[in-house]
Amino acid sequence: MDVGSKYDQRGVSSSKSDVHDAIKHLDKGLFPNAFCKILPDYLGGDETYCNIMHADTAGTKPSLAYVYWKETGDSSVWAGVIQDAIVMNVDDMACVGAVDNIVLSSTIGRNKTLIPGAVVKDLIDGTQDFIAKMKNLGVTLHLSGGETADVGDIVRTLDVGFTAFARIKKSDVIDIDIQDGDVIVALASYGQSTYETEYNGGMGSNGLTSARHDVFGKYLAEKYPESYNPEIDADLVYAGGKALTDIDSETGLTYGKLVLSPTRTFMPVLNRIIGSMKEEIHGLIHTTGGAQTKVMNFVHGMHIIKDNMFDVPPLFRIIKEESGTDWREMYQVFNMGHRLEVYLKPDAAQDVLDIAKEFKIDAKIIGRCEVAEEKKLTISTDTGTYTY
Amino acid sequence: MDVGSKYDQRGVSSSKSDVHDAIKHLDKGLFPNAFCKILPDYLGGDETYCNIMHADTAGTKPSLAYVYWKETGDSSVWAGVIQDAIVMNVDDMACVGAVDNIVLSSTIGRNKTLIPGAVVKDLIDGTQDFIAKMKNLGVTLHLSGGETADVGDIVRTLDVGFTAFARIKKSDVIDIDIQDGDVIVALASYGQSTYETEYNGGMGSNGLTSARHDVFGKYLAEKYPESYNPEIDADLVYAGGKALTDIDSETGLTYGKLVLSPTRTFMPVLNRIIGSMKEEIHGLIHTTGGAQTKVMNFVHGMHIIKDNMFDVPPLFRIIKEESGTDWREMYQVFNMGHRLEVYLKPDAAQDVLDIAKEFKIDAKIIGRCEVAEEKKLTISTDTGTYTY
Repeated sequence: MDVGSKYDQRGVSSSKSDVHDAIKHLDKGLFPNAFCKILPDYLGGDETYCNIMHADTAGTKPSLAYVYWKETGDSSVWAGVIQDAIVMNVDDMACVGAVDNIVLSSTIGRNKTLIPGAVVKDLIDGTQDFIAKMKNLGVTLHLSGGETADVGDIVRTLDVGFTAFARIKKSDVIDIDIQDGDVIVALASYGQSTYETEYNGGMGSNGLTSARHDVFGKYLAEKYPESYNPEIDADLVYAGGKALTDIDSETGLTYGKLVLSPTRTFMPVLNRIIGSMKEEIHGLIHTTGGAQTKVMNFVHGMHIIKDNMFDVPPLFRIIKEESGTDWREMYQVFNMGHRLEVYLKPDAAQDVLDIAKEFKIDAKIIGRCEVAEEKKLTISTDTGTYTY
Repeated sequence: MDVGSKYDQRGVSSSKSDVHDAIKHLDKGLFPNAFCKILPDYLGGDETYCNIMHADTAGTKPSLAYVYWKETGDSSVWAGVIQDAIVMNVDDMACVGAVDNIVLSSTIGRNKTLIPGAVVKDLIDGTQDFIAKMKNLGVTLHLSGGETADVGDIVRTLDVGFTAFARIKKSDVIDIDIQDGDVIVALASYGQSTYETEYNGGMGSNGLTSARHDVFGKYLAEKYPESYNPEIDADLVYAGGKALTDIDSETGLTYGKLVLSPTRTFMPVLNRIIGSMKEEIHGLIHTTGGAQTKVMNFVHGMHIIKDNMFDVPPLFRIIKEESGTDWREMYQVFNMGHRLEVYLKPDAAQDVLDIAKEFKIDAKIIGRCEVAEEKKLTISTDTGTYTY
C-alpha cells in the first residue's frame, strides 16, 4: 500500500511502515480499534471514565508559512499554522467522542536567527484567538501553556506541535465497528463554512511535503534554502510551476494562500452530531495520514466502496496537474475533497447531512460498506477505479 | 541579566526575553509563583484538585547524539535523549509536588533520510525502559503514545519532545515561598547515583548549543553539516579542541559521552523528600534555563547567597577551558554541579541530606536567603564573586 517513489525520496511515507513496526508491540489501549488510543482513567481512578492524550504537529506546513511570510510580509499565516497543529489533535480526538473540555499544550521549536519574537507572539495570540472562536461555537479548549525552544541546530525554521488531553466517560467513547450495509457520509474539506472568514482550499496538514514541492517553482529553493531538506534530490525540490503570489483564477486566492488554507476543524459539527445521534455512529474517520485509505487501518473483512466522491476541488486538481502524480497515489496522499467520514446505517444519514448544512459544510453519501473475505477499498471516479 | 553575545549569536537565549514578552499576558494559573503552571481541575471538576500539563524537549542534545552515533555506531545514545526529554518534564513537575502517576506523550520529528526506523525503535524502547526503571523506584509514569513525524523540511536530524500530565490535590501543591533565613540544599547533577549504571557528567539538557560548539572540533562541521544551523557565524561552529571519542582521563569517559550524559532525574529522591517532609519545603528549583540564576524568577525582596557551591565538576571545567567563557556567564548557562535546590529552614536540612545520601547523590547546604530591598543573587566561589 506504499505510495510512489517520489514521495519516499522526499523523505516522507504516508504508510509510515517503519514507525508502525517500531510501535507494534506497544499496548493498544482499552479500545484497540478506536481512532485514538484510549487509556484507563489514570488521573481520576474512576472505572467508568477513561483518558485520552494525543500529540500532533503542523507537519511541514510551517515551512510554507515561512516562505510566504518572507515573500509577502503577511503574518496571518502564523495563526493558520497554529490552527493546523491544534486541529490535527482535536479532530482526531473528536473521532473517539471527545468533543469538549480538552486541555492543550504547545511545543514550538524555532530557529531564532530566522524566527523573531514577533512571530512567537503571533503564534501565542493565534492560539488564544482560535480557542476563543471555538468557545463561541460551543467547544471548550483550555490552554495550559507550552514550551518555546530556541533550537536552530535542530529546526531549520519553525516547528509547531500541540498535545491534547481529555477525560470522558467510557460509555461516551466511539469505537469503530463498521458494519455490512453502512453508508459513508463525508464532510467536505473545502469551501467556506459558517465559521470561516474566507474560502478554504481543503489542504489540512497532510501531504504538504508533496504539495509544496510539486506546486511551487524552483525560485524558492534558491531564495530560501532554509525551507527544505538538502538531502533530497534537487530535481524533487520546488519542482512546480507556480509562484506563491500568483492568483488562482477559480478561487481568487494566491496559490500560496490556497495551499496554506488552515486545516478546517469539524469539532463544532461533530459536537452536534455526537450530541444528538452518538448511538447511530459506527465509526468516525479523520482522513489524515493515508488520506482516503485511512479507514483501512480500522476494518477487517469489509469492502469499503467509495463511488460517489466529491468532485476534486481546485487545490487538488492543481496539485495533480503540477505533479503528474497518478490518481491512485493522489487518494493516498491528499484528502481530495473530504476530511471527515461518518459510517452509519443509511436511514441515519440524513440527520448528519442536515447538521452539516447548518454550518454550510458540503456533505453527502460518498459510498458504502459490504462484508468481504478480505479487507479492500475501491475508489471509483470518472477518471477510473482504484483499489487498495 | 542576558548572557554574552556568543550565546546570542548562536541563536539561543538563556533569558528567553522575547518569548517571555510574547506570553506575559497569558493567565499564570492558580499558583502564580509555583514552578509550573497549575490549572484548575478541568478534567475532574473537583474543587480540591488541580491539573498540571507540561511540555519540554531534549533541546539540541539529539544533534550531538546523532553525530556520536554516526561516528561510533553506539545506539545507546537514543535511550539517553529520551531520558533527557522525559526528565526535563517530570523533574519540573516534581518541583510543584507531582512525583507520581504522570501520563506522558512523545512528539518525535525526524529527517527520515538520516534517521532510520531502527532509531525510532531505539527511542520507543528507551521510553519503555525508562518508565520500567522508574516504576521499580516507586515512580509511576504512563506512556500514552505519541507522534512520530517525517518532517525533513523542518528538522535537520531529530527532535525529541515529551508532554506530561498530572492531576494532584491542591493541598499537595508546592508553591514557592522562600523565606528569610532559609538555607539552600543542593542535589548534585554529577557522579553516580544508586540508579545510574555509570558516571554522569551532570549535563542535563540546557546549555547544549554552547557545550557542543565550545567543546568539539571543527572536523564535525565539515563531516556533519546537518548537525548545526548554517545561519550562525562559522567561527562559532564546533570551535573547541576535543574529538568526540577522545577520552577524558579524569572520568574515563569519551568527551562525547561525558556531554551526552543523560539528564539525571531527581524523581525518586523528591518522591521520598516530598512524601516525608512536604510541609518543611519553601521551594524546589530545577536549575534549567538560566541555570544557577533560575531561582530569580521566583523571589521578590530576597537576597539569595550561594557561597558554598560544589567544586566545579570535570565536565563544566572542560567547557570553561575550551570556551573561555567567563565564570559569571558559566553560572547562567550551565548548572555547574547541582540541578536541584531545596529551600527550607536550617533545622530541616539534615533530613534532605540523609535521603539524598541513600541514593548516593551528593548533597549539601550551598547557601542561604536573606530579606533585602531588591531581589539579588550572589554566587561566591574561590574564583570570584558574581552578582545577578
